[in-house]
Amino acid sequence: MPDAAPHGAPRARILLIGDELLLGRTADANGAWLARRLSDAGFLVRGLHIVGDEEREIVAALRAARRDAELVVCSGGLGPTADDRTRQALARLLRAPLIEDGASWRRIQRWHARRRPGTEVPASNRQQALLPRGAEALLNDRGTAPGILARGGGAWIACLPGVPHELQAMSERLLRRLRRLLPGWRRPACSELWVAGISESALQDRLGELLAGDEPRVGITVSEQAYITLRLVGAPAAVRARRRALRARLGPWLLPAPSLAASLVQALRAAGATVACAESCTAGHAAASLLAVPGASAVLRESLIAYHEEAKIARLGVARALIREQGVVSEPVVRAMAEGLRRAVGCDLALATTGIAGPTGGTPQLPVGTVWVAAASARGTVARRLLIAGERQRVQRRAAAEALLLAWQHWRSGGSPPPA
Amino acid sequence: MPDAAPHGAPRARILLIGDELLLGRTADANGAWLARRLSDAGFLVRGLHIVGDEEREIVAALRAARRDAELVVCSGGLGPTADDRTRQALARLLRAPLIEDGASWRRIQRWHARRRPGTEVPASNRQQALLPRGAEALLNDRGTAPGILARGGGAWIACLPGVPHELQAMSERLLRRLRRLLPGWRRPACSELWVAGISESALQDRLGELLAGDEPRVGITVSEQAYITLRLVGAPAAVRARRRALRARLGPWLLPAPSLAASLVQALRAAGATVACAESCTAGHAAASLLAVPGASAVLRESLIAYHEEAKIARLGVARALIREQGVVSEPVVRAMAEGLRRAVGCDLALATTGIAGPTGGTPQLPVGTVWVAAASARGTVARRLLIAGERQRVQRRAAAEALLLAWQHWRSGGSPPPA
Repeated sequence: MPDAAPHGAPRARILLIGDELLLGRTADANGAWLARRLSDAGFLVRGLHIVGDEEREIVAALRAARRDAELVVCSGGLGPTADDRTRQALARLLRAPLIEDGASWRRIQRWHARRRPGTEVPASNRQQALLPRGAEALLNDRGTAPGILARGGGAWIACLPGVPHELQAMSERLLRRLRRLLPGWRRPACSELWVAGISESALQDRLGELLAGDEPRVGITVSEQAYITLRLVGAPAAVRARRRALRARLGPWLLPAPSLAASLVQALRAAGATVACAESCTAGHAAASLLAVPGASAVLRESLIAYHEEAKIARLGVARALIREQGVVSEPVVRAMAEGLRRAVGCDLALATTGIAGPTGGTPQLPVGTVWVAAASARGTVARRLLIAGERQRVQRRAAAEALLLAWQHWRSGGSPPPA
Repeated sequence: MPDAAPHGAPRARILLIGDELLLGRTADANGAWLARRLSDAGFLVRGLHIVGDEEREIVAALRAARRDAELVVCSGGLGPTADDRTRQALARLLRAPLIEDGASWRRIQRWHARRRPGTEVPASNRQQALLPRGAEALLNDRGTAPGILARGGGAWIACLPGVPHELQAMSERLLRRLRRLLPGWRRPACSELWVAGISESALQDRLGELLAGDEPRVGITVSEQAYITLRLVGAPAAVRARRRALRARLGPWLLPAPSLAASLVQALRAAGATVACAESCTAGHAAASLLAVPGASAVLRESLIAYHEEAKIARLGVARALIREQGVVSEPVVRAMAEGLRRAVGCDLALATTGIAGPTGGTPQLPVGTVWVAAASARGTVARRLLIAGERQRVQRRAAAEALLLAWQHWRSGGSPPPA
């Protein structure tokens, strides 16, 4: 859809390389990430292609991709093993010999010396310093393989490693480098809003025409972490105006930070308050989400995974009789867990979860996916029952996210019961 | 790579259609699913291509895909709206007019009547009954749009809707239909081995020629969870023979189950033993990895996140003086955490972690990414120092995986110190 592109947007194509991606065993993380990053940076992403490790296939895909794109970004196939053929394929496409890049080889040696002092660099790692003549190395400060940037057939071709955290850091540097190489390219403005406690379809109904049109474009992404991101991309003035209009309609659901966990950590830090979690079926995911936020250690000092009944009794002071009478997956027990944790740890806000993550353990009354979550503070305790579809890990993660949502609503409301 | 295919394996290409996939907002679920399903069914998946909704792009991608494949499976672009162009693109490719399929139109009418009784079928839904002349409709019993199966340029082209649960049900029917249309097609054997404690390049050096060749093909996938999967695909006898050869060289590193966490849970269950974790910088990820394994609750009864010094002192009995003298990120402290946890919980195996996940808190002596991990059992305690590159969450996850590796090595060796 070239007519949908911001005027003059350069075109990009993405090429992912690796047999494992074609076997469907490895969930690819790089494709969607690169597509979003390039779109946000003002590129029109025209296609994404996944091919296997065979050199001839990679050459053919590179040749097809550069035909109608100003930028081709590849990931994968730069590792040290014999089935990593991206650099060879690029050299063949460019009809340029592979030559060792001295700076890259020294960097590989230093990288190795830091990690395995006193041992020799395996020969297979040395080929990672090879570049097609005329190409430049792209710094990789998170792994051994440098990336490659080359010009061929009217396009810039960038090859990045397939390891996501290496690829992501290198993409940012690549975009900075391209600013000088693609003079016509202008980055659009980009802005995000985050909401929680409202469904996607309720959001659609409420916002209606504010989601339509191309200037700015508004995209909605629903996170498994129980919040929704609205993303605005377009001319700066249009983005600013639409952002104001959206904020005006989204007041009660807006989050101050880019996730529920980050919002909760920010609010607790501002109040000088502490939090702890007593997690059963959520396996520690609520605490892990909070602790993924930099600085979270100031608010979460300790936390507990209490899978077994005895742990709920011994560590949280839940009465054995309560568990026997109500069942371990019940509102009274989850409330007792949150309140017991608050007493045991002496924190301001306590979260608790108990439920059935599956695949076994369900009953007609309490099917797999049934989870009770609770939040307790000085102002009282709230609890909510969930029924989550899907596999064990999805139940664990979704329930943890819903516990954070309940805790956020409880804390923000000053302790009053959250809206249904 | 026609020569790399198991003898006689038909080649497949996958084509996903939709602008939203190229904006990176929608995590595509169909690509990996189709790739795995087709690979498991004995197809050699040669490539996966994502294109936008533009008709010309779809025609070009279809034409390129059928050139060297016996089967092209497309998903998306069969909806009722104007930007759904897959059927038009297919008709153009085949130079065949679109003709209404009577049976499909009656099915659409019945589907509509069940859902919106008494209202007329929108005109836009009627175009979903159009097929290129000579094509056949593929039954969709979960939605309005039928799929399309057509023959063109030596390949079978199947177009399926983009809704995952519709696509999945229809794929099974498509595979049954193809069994009659592709008489040469036979399912290959498929086998996996898992190893931990050896790097990818050391594996390459050690296995050399056992990784090369096409019969069987051996693929290597490195997990962020500190283990490596080797996947063998080919003729059953070749797969069995190579598997034996690989196992003979990989003895000390072989895992009994498809991850470190699953292997540890399996070994502990077999021994009737229990495990607990005292996690600081790993934020609960070690326990969460264990608890992701079905049945893990039998071995992990409780676990602790002890971020703050006071939690390490109060819950784990680490001496305050030890922390003051050695620093909280140190070998003596991580050992004391593991041993203290074992005493406090009364478990057979205890894991502990302490380190600096970042982004702040590093020093020249203890840079961000420095983590000490330990494992304690009745036979003693082992500890290891790590230096992990990357962002906070990566440090947390990788360190948790390395703690599981140390625990696995310690447990399997019966408590003797693991090899360096």
